[in-house]
Amino acid sequence: MSDFNFLIEELVKFRDARNWEQFHNSRDLALAISIEASELNELFLWKSIEDSEQVDKTKLKEELADVFAFALLLAEKHGFDVKEIVLEKIRKNNEKYPVEKSKGTARKYNEL
Amino acid sequence: MSDFNFLIEELVKFRDARNWEQFHNSRDLALAISIEASELNELFLWKSIEDSEQVDKTKLKEELADVFAFALLLAEKHGFDVKEIVLEKIRKNNEKYPVEKSKGTARKYNEL
Amino acid sequence: MSDFNFLIEELVKFRDARNWEQFHNSRDLALAISIEASELNELFLWKSIEDSEQVDKTKLKEELADVFAFALLLAEKHGFDVKEIVLEKIRKNNEKYPVEKSKGTARKYNEL
Amino acid sequence: MSDFNFLIEELVKFRDARNWEQFHNSRDLALAISIEASELNELFLWKSIEDSEQVDKTKLKEELADVFAFALLLAEKHGFDVKEIVLEKIRKNNEKYPVEKSKGTARKYNEL
Repeated sequence: MSDFNFLIEELVKFRDARNWEQFHNSRDLALAISIEASELNELFLWKSIEDSEQVDKTKLKEELADVFAFALLLAEKHGFDVKEIVLEKIRKNNEKYPVEKSKGTARKYNEL
Repeated sequence: MSDFNFLIEELVKFRDARNWEQFHNSRDLALAISIEASELNELFLWKSIEDSEQVDKTKLKEELADVFAFALLLAEKHGFDVKEIVLEKIRKNNEKYPVEKSKGTARKYNEL
Repeated sequence: MSDFNFLIEELVKFRDARNWEQFHNSRDLALAISIEASELNELFLWKSIEDSEQVDKTKLKEELADVFAFALLLAEKHGFDVKEIVLEKIRKNNEKYPVEKSKGTARKYNEL
Repeated sequence: MSDFNFLIEELVKFRDARNWEQFHNSRDLALAISIEASELNELFLWKSIEDSEQVDKTKLKEELADVFAFALLLAEKHGFDVKEIVLEKIRKNNEKYPVEKSKGTARKYNEL
């Protein structure tokens, strides 16, 4: 079994033991991802970009894990294969951001 | 190799071909996760929770993949094992949300 | 004095008494708005759209006030007149969303 | 009439001409604030804190105005007086962040 599927199984076990599937519609799962991402960002608020590398690792792990957890649950809900959708997005980004145009610049694809 | 490590390798290849590691500090990666999570949420804006299940699957895949991509890059930056940090978080949540107290309720752990 | 300017004065007094202007660069103020907006959204997480109107009013006031506070501080930093920028945006939206095309639909302007 | 009330009137006129009140429940308005805040943050993504002050002013005005617009509509929905709720929050923050403890530090109140 892939790591993604293993984690999804563990997350589903946790969810189902609490009868929480009723709350896990797509819209709420998406919102949960956003809220966890925001808590992750709060670790860096008012910190310089240099200082941001000295962030509390324990907290960083926890907030990042929360993002992964809800993202995996949303993928599960729609039967997405995480490996496949990320590879597909990399393929698309290869077209949107050709190496020769995007090398060394952080500009968005529509400003290249 | 685990799926996570495989995806991280692909993402790093993509990043390094463009010389983008210079932009990928922890703070910006965290912000990128948040921005992608927000684009994911925009798919559901002004839609009822029922209608939210009829979301455009192609767009959903893309936005969710973007969240995974930046989350994987942030994990890579700190040398985190995604499987390990998610399992660790499930363990902590098992303590914060005991089955008997949290079954069937969406309340936060500090309101149980 | 306009209400906006009055509030900005109060916020600046609060900020300067703590010597916090040093932290209030544009990027951090924007991030603070986003984090407060996320806390506002957390009040509605896992709640139906109908139940969302029964949200705790005290918490709603506080989270919404936090959004206003950082938005006002960012406006102040750039010398924006809040009334003017909002009116200008309404004018632009009047063009992007002509009444005849957008009446009764929540579609985005590029999908009208 | 206060500036806030004037802007709220203009926003309500815009909304009602399009028959959009049906979409403006509290949960969606809160999500809209968050999405606009994220677009505001995107202006700063991959930029150093110093460069963040050279942000495109026209875009900054527009994104910030969008945050204000939805925040004002949410305040209107609940009959909040913006001036009052922000002043009340400043009073609370005066207690949470006493000058002597918080001067010159960006630490959160629970870490002071």
